[in-house]
Amino acid sequence: MPSLNVHFLPALTTPEALTGSAVVVIDVLRATTTIATALAAGARKVIPCQEVEEAREVAAKLPAGSVLLGGERAGTPIAGFDLGNSPLEYTPARVAGKTLVFTTTNGTRALRHARLAKAIFCGAFVNLSAIADHLRGEPRIDLLCAGTDGQVTAEDVLFAGMLANRIASLDQRRGRKRDFGDAAAIAMAFHESVGSSERSRFRVLCESLGGRNLIELGMTPDIRYAAQLNRHRLAPELLTPSGHIVASRS
Amino acid sequence: MPSLNVHFLPALTTPEALTGSAVVVIDVLRATTTIATALAAGARKVIPCQEVEEAREVAAKLPAGSVLLGGERAGTPIAGFDLGNSPLEYTPARVAGKTLVFTTTNGTRALRHARLAKAIFCGAFVNLSAIADHLRGEPRIDLLCAGTDGQVTAEDVLFAGMLANRIASLDQRRGRKRDFGDAAAIAMAFHESVGSSERSRFRVLCESLGGRNLIELGMTPDIRYAAQLNRHRLAPELLTPSGHIVASRS
Repeated sequence: MPSLNVHFLPALTTPEALTGSAVVVIDVLRATTTIATALAAGARKVIPCQEVEEAREVAAKLPAGSVLLGGERAGTPIAGFDLGNSPLEYTPARVAGKTLVFTTTNGTRALRHARLAKAIFCGAFVNLSAIADHLRGEPRIDLLCAGTDGQVTAEDVLFAGMLANRIASLDQRRGRKRDFGDAAAIAMAFHESVGSSERSRFRVLCESLGGRNLIELGMTPDIRYAAQLNRHRLAPELLTPSGHIVASRS
Repeated sequence: MPSLNVHFLPALTTPEALTGSAVVVIDVLRATTTIATALAAGARKVIPCQEVEEAREVAAKLPAGSVLLGGERAGTPIAGFDLGNSPLEYTPARVAGKTLVFTTTNGTRALRHARLAKAIFCGAFVNLSAIADHLRGEPRIDLLCAGTDGQVTAEDVLFAGMLANRIASLDQRRGRKRDFGDAAAIAMAFHESVGSSERSRFRVLCESLGGRNLIELGMTPDIRYAAQLNRHRLAPELLTPSGHIVASRS
């Protein structure tokens, strides 16, 4: 039977267990929101890197003028980088036509965890419907929440629940049955209890572990942006073996 | 500020992080349900053991006639043991006045994970209110879901959410504020979506990972029993350094 599983943290599954599955990596605050935004703003591709030094080396090998370094450590920009991890920085004026070399703590680690999957997408509220479209017909779906430093975060689980509910509706419309694991059932119930309004979603994001960190750093506008639904009609897809994330439009 | 955190699996926290906290270990299907039932049926105490051989050795040192060996591996009884892990076996006729040496896979491991806590209780639907009473006034509460073989299970998260909601109500009545972590918020929403009726709880237990395993083994009556609320008015408490679980009545 087709299946959909949710993993509240990468540590709750293994790369091997994701082999052959269509995986959505979720780091709503803020990596996957920012990656979707950068591609929507015309960035050619995003190259995710685990370490700051690795990002600098990758960028140094690319033609000067064609590349931007972006990302964060502990929520704040990295010395010498062109851009931080706020999606609001990723405007067409800054990023159109550029290659973005990008490193964040939790999001990049989650992307690496999915490396054996059949397909790897970056999901966030700003592109939820495009992600749902790309999962159409997939027999095995795994939604991988990045969390924050090994802690479960409400914003990622809320997105997983909303996407799982969307997929359940699409399945139902086609008379198709799918097996939803226990964590998926919990995430779906969480989304049902929060509801689909932007206002209630914004409140959950503000109260979450990730949101409280951002509010302390003065980044409430980022949370407001990340709570918006379907602002972009594209699914960032991590291609193998290149390791590059490009915009896939359905 | 007082806090309440939920851990969907023991691996999501560390023994050190639980130091000084009042911890409720949750393995609804079936270890904590069975432990509460055994004590309610008059067992003098329960000695949890991680390994089958360890349980045999502990039992061998106790006066013959005063001790019973109980537990399971992969849902089925252990060769040479007096009792399995079905709460329905733990009748007064079988266990009154006896010391129960007990080993199960997930529940015992979760108890061990909580070893540095200030107080350790065994929680299940059959004794939810007694657990809530024992947590009264506790500034730090951690609800530790045992899960099944490293997988999140809905029945444990449902119990954690119901207990967290109960504690939130008690706090509110006293005008007391408490900080609920993200996983607690998710578990509470899950309980709200399921509701408090025994019928809806039974359905979630049947559909959960732990429940489906038991149904395959022909143990649906155990699930029906575990879904009952407040059948027993006691909180099993693991005492240190003895490592014995005794009935605490408020």
